[in-house]
Amino acid sequence: MTIYLHDIPLDKATESFSESLRAAELDGILGDEELLLDEDAVGRVLARAVWAEICSPHYHASAMDGFAVLAADTDGAMPTNPVTLLYGEQALYVDTGDVLPSEMNAVIPIENVEPLESNGGVSVDIRSPNAIRIRSAAPPWQHVRPLGEDIVATQLVLPAGHTLRPVDMGAIAACGHESVRAARKPRVAIIPTGTELVPVGAELKPGGIIEYNSIVLAGQVKQWGGAPNRFPIVIDELRLISEKVAEAAADHDLILLSAGSSAGSEDFSAQVVQQLGELLVHGVAVRPGHPVILGMIHKSQLAGDQTKFVPIIGVPGYPVSAALTGEIFVKPLIERWLGKQASTPMRIKAKITRKVTSPAGDDDFMRVAVGRVGDKVLAAPLQRGAGVISSLVRADGIVVIPR
Amino acid sequence: MTIYLHDIPLDKATESFSESLRAAELDGILGDEELLLDEDAVGRVLARAVWAEICSPHYHASAMDGFAVLAADTDGAMPTNPVTLLYGEQALYVDTGDVLPSEMNAVIPIENVEPLESNGGVSVDIRSPNAIRIRSAAPPWQHVRPLGEDIVATQLVLPAGHTLRPVDMGAIAACGHESVRAARKPRVAIIPTGTELVPVGAELKPGGIIEYNSIVLAGQVKQWGGAPNRFPIVIDELRLISEKVAEAAADHDLILLSAGSSAGSEDFSAQVVQQLGELLVHGVAVRPGHPVILGMIHKSQLAGDQTKFVPIIGVPGYPVSAALTGEIFVKPLIERWLGKQASTPMRIKAKITRKVTSPAGDDDFMRVAVGRVGDKVLAAPLQRGAGVISSLVRADGIVVIPR
Repeated sequence: MTIYLHDIPLDKATESFSESLRAAELDGILGDEELLLDEDAVGRVLARAVWAEICSPHYHASAMDGFAVLAADTDGAMPTNPVTLLYGEQALYVDTGDVLPSEMNAVIPIENVEPLESNGGVSVDIRSPNAIRIRSAAPPWQHVRPLGEDIVATQLVLPAGHTLRPVDMGAIAACGHESVRAARKPRVAIIPTGTELVPVGAELKPGGIIEYNSIVLAGQVKQWGGAPNRFPIVIDELRLISEKVAEAAADHDLILLSAGSSAGSEDFSAQVVQQLGELLVHGVAVRPGHPVILGMIHKSQLAGDQTKFVPIIGVPGYPVSAALTGEIFVKPLIERWLGKQASTPMRIKAKITRKVTSPAGDDDFMRVAVGRVGDKVLAAPLQRGAGVISSLVRADGIVVIPR
Repeated sequence: MTIYLHDIPLDKATESFSESLRAAELDGILGDEELLLDEDAVGRVLARAVWAEICSPHYHASAMDGFAVLAADTDGAMPTNPVTLLYGEQALYVDTGDVLPSEMNAVIPIENVEPLESNGGVSVDIRSPNAIRIRSAAPPWQHVRPLGEDIVATQLVLPAGHTLRPVDMGAIAACGHESVRAARKPRVAIIPTGTELVPVGAELKPGGIIEYNSIVLAGQVKQWGGAPNRFPIVIDELRLISEKVAEAAADHDLILLSAGSSAGSEDFSAQVVQQLGELLVHGVAVRPGHPVILGMIHKSQLAGDQTKFVPIIGVPGYPVSAALTGEIFVKPLIERWLGKQASTPMRIKAKITRKVTSPAGDDDFMRVAVGRVGDKVLAAPLQRGAGVISSLVRADGIVVIPR
């Protein structure tokens, strides 16, 4: 039994994990799929750039309800010098969005036109008068949306790696697409282990621990763009845990093995990883966090499946450690697999409200409540215990104290 | 036929709409529903505050793998003066998370203990030695997570109106809940109208307009927490549009009637609203936007249904106007129905790169690209046409130029 963990610095742990992912060809996007343009595409990440198939508008379009004219025919029109244009020859009614007749190059809004009957009186049907009288000249292309005003065919509309927002789908549809290629969602298995664990809602006795880390991790995975799959609780038996991990490796891209990542008498995660693959890191010098496991599980080879390894992360049991392990290790991995640029959290400057000490050698992630008092922004450290999930609930931010 | 729209200022339009919603008792949350704590609850809004049912931890728990002791028994232990405690009476093995035996009040980590056999030699089984030898005293409550350290029963954990994040679900589970009451998602019907409209992916001829505003609106509604329902395109016939709106009113909380909101020859939205209910506003002095319609549709009374009205928003046809109508009118309504605090966008100070003019009397929403050049933050105005959806795609922000 190993009692001491060998903690390595965060950057070294990340590097070792990245190297193994690279070697296993798991450092790019996992695959892409066709997605129709509808509300379910919001938040998905483009696997390929979108280039315009057609122009938008794809024809010269009237931008107003009114009369299409040839600008030259309106020359000299003034309040004191009205110009009359013959309907059908020199003027044609168009609604907003209608094709501009090919011989015309301007639109006069309906409210600036006097429609005339053949006898010179005011026409009742404004849409097909005998003639129209105007009192100001129309410059060429007035109230016309020219072909390609919005988007020109062949232009780049959105780059690969872009996360789709509602307006993006409008632009993609406008330039002639009905679907996009989006990065496939990474499938993440979340396996909670522990004989003392009790599912949410079940009867609770002293010593029983409500299992909610899998819910927090699943929520994180979903939020970051992955597809979480929560497994039922597995009791602390090496064989059972090992079986579940092997099962999960068959059809998931990542395994989060929750708890049992330390080196206690019933901590089997490291052993499981060693049995089924390669243990890369056991213990990372972050606080809270510490007993994080990083490894690669051999995948039983199905026909046609090229992937030989499935990464596994042994997640510590304390809830704050678990949530931070998600932020530090799972989020960048999912972002990489989606082809997204790694997101960086917003940074602000604030004055810490009291002296804090931090253990030497660890990167310390301290939760703080942030507030503005007068013209100062203050950050008040919250409870630092790894078991205090309410500190994460109350936190406005995290101060990283480098080792 | 009304040719001129009567634009009213934005604040007056909003006020009139709010008043009607209040009168129809549609200004609070629409209802609530039971939600299990899982990843699908992320992003949902609490309809009721969450109070702690139980403490977390719900017992005094060991925070380490080690030996539970009575602190007083360890008094005086020093490297030069070891103290020996009898196993079973003065010391008991505990794993992290185990119940602290009732007579004990501290835990000594396993790595700080020398386990002894009955003959005084080192014990091989560290979990049940004959005695343990320690070389430093344990203060009371050392390495113990006391009852309620994280959450105390009856305390407020999260207020109503809070949007659930992954860690929140951990805290809610930790204090004894298996579900929450969440605000019901507002059901939003989106009805695209227009004879010239062509569905995404269908054959396109000159004059045909690809219908994508309903996709953008549906994406927005989903993003803001509503449940969008896109209807098929309805051609410009008063009777057909009217039928669809009446149909939608039966089982939706809000109707977005896309296009036809102006006063052109084929703009029927205002007429439909007048036929089926009350037209409150026709034309709002915002740019782009203008021909926005706000109204209330009478709902045919089903047994047990208390709601008499369904609000309707006539959305302008230009894509930028449509998206901004979503932001300005739909988003606050959905937020109100979810019981969320109205969200305010992030504001930054920037220098505009060139002089801009703005039509008098309109609140002007100008799209800008924002960048940092040297130590200055610059905002460059983008194309201002209401038809240029790519300006919204490229925009980093919106400058509101008040009328």
